[in-house]
Amino acid sequence: MLRVACVQTDPKLGDLAQNLNRILRGIREANADLVVFPECALSGYGFDSREAGLRAAEPLPGPGSKEIQTACRETGAWVVFGLLERAGKRGLFNSAALVGPKGVAGVYRKAHLPYLGIDRFTDKGDVGFPVFDTPVGRIGLLICYDGSFPEAPRVLKLAGAQLICLPTNWPEAAEVSACHSPMVRAQENHVNFVTCNRVGQEAGFTFRGESKICDHSGRVLASAGREEQTISAELDLASADRNRVVYSEGRYELDRIAHRRPEFYAPLARRTRPARVRRRG
Amino acid sequence: MLRVACVQTDPKLGDLAQNLNRILRGIREANADLVVFPECALSGYGFDSREAGLRAAEPLPGPGSKEIQTACRETGAWVVFGLLERAGKRGLFNSAALVGPKGVAGVYRKAHLPYLGIDRFTDKGDVGFPVFDTPVGRIGLLICYDGSFPEAPRVLKLAGAQLICLPTNWPEAAEVSACHSPMVRAQENHVNFVTCNRVGQEAGFTFRGESKICDHSGRVLASAGREEQTISAELDLASADRNRVVYSEGRYELDRIAHRRPEFYAPLARRTRPARVRRRG
Repeated sequence: MLRVACVQTDPKLGDLAQNLNRILRGIREANADLVVFPECALSGYGFDSREAGLRAAEPLPGPGSKEIQTACRETGAWVVFGLLERAGKRGLFNSAALVGPKGVAGVYRKAHLPYLGIDRFTDKGDVGFPVFDTPVGRIGLLICYDGSFPEAPRVLKLAGAQLICLPTNWPEAAEVSACHSPMVRAQENHVNFVTCNRVGQEAGFTFRGESKICDHSGRVLASAGREEQTISAELDLASADRNRVVYSEGRYELDRIAHRRPEFYAPLARRTRPARVRRRG
Repeated sequence: MLRVACVQTDPKLGDLAQNLNRILRGIREANADLVVFPECALSGYGFDSREAGLRAAEPLPGPGSKEIQTACRETGAWVVFGLLERAGKRGLFNSAALVGPKGVAGVYRKAHLPYLGIDRFTDKGDVGFPVFDTPVGRIGLLICYDGSFPEAPRVLKLAGAQLICLPTNWPEAAEVSACHSPMVRAQENHVNFVTCNRVGQEAGFTFRGESKICDHSGRVLASAGREEQTISAELDLASADRNRVVYSEGRYELDRIAHRRPEFYAPLARRTRPARVRRRG
């Protein structure tokens, strides 16, 4: 069993030193095998220019990830945290990093960008949806708005992910369905699904917290409120690999992967939309 | 605006005459532009052999659809209903039909089949996910377990569907996430989404009702209880075509279709699963 914690922090815009300290304290207090932090937990999110975002960005590995690695070595924990990532001279991504005792084990760059906050100014993620096979399990990362695109977690599941971590910055205004989506994503993919949202206010937005740890059946094992808070639960990662589920003493069986019909899914991978259908009736 | 009604019926296994009468009464009482009935509303669902299913199956058009067409002509309504469809000499599908005043305007054959009820014995749907362009709007049909596969509503949306109707037979035991999925499907696809579930008991299952009419933002406009009941609401179908949504006086914008990254979605359409990822860290 893997003990997973989500630490709902309230990052301060552009104050990397304070935000890093909050992350380090969160790792040490969480007492977990994997500790998940929000989107842009190191940097804050609501920057109003690319230049401001670049000033709050770090490379991977970088100063923040190295301090986090030290905390991982001390505690034995693995960590997922969000940051603005500087790539090369001018690249700027909204990224999530997976860090372990030996350093950065995985980097995900947000693929789906809303017109909002720093995402207006960052580069579109260019790494697809990688799965990172680590000693604690096969882990996929997504960020915030990515969770609205069912293709993303599905690609991770098909590549073998047992656990998907979604650092997020869901604002108060997020439609209520966004709060249902972790359970639906977990269930439809038969995958453990963890969301870690921030709290507090920034650039006119109030963030709603409500982080969740869902198992592969879509059940919510732990759920947070709207304040700074750490939640945790134990997840059985290997059971996410057994897609065939038998209910009611064999009276019915579901397999949400084997029962797919990919021969009908070709339009999903097309870069242009198909022509509209013809009128009937 | 389109007035849509869901009629939660309690079909009797194999009693097509009684079930058809219930459907006809539902159409006449609904006072709606589009009236949706449950999965297998004409036949019942819990058959324990293919032969029993074939005895309760009808072709399309067939005796049931013709009576329904007459009710459409009298009321001006369009109708979606579920049935077992006999195709050719030996074909048997779990289907949903769209019927209007001029007859059958669309047939959908359930693509994703659980090991459960008559689905153990029916043929896998062979028509993909067609969208039917009718005088009341562009309509896509799905059935029950299809709703657990996010690829299906996404294909319909990309082909121009403004409204997706999902006749279903969700049992009491259905995980709670299945009940959240209509809101999530509506929101993630920016499409109106209507589920019509049956009630009552059959073959050891109790069905939970809770039919829902959701608009393209994922908002629930009408929701049913667990008894026979008709619910209705008005939907603005054309607004589902305007995917770009502006919030908070232009402070942010979302477009759940334009912001897709299909260049990363190729694994979804592959017929074999990709190889597992390599170990890192």
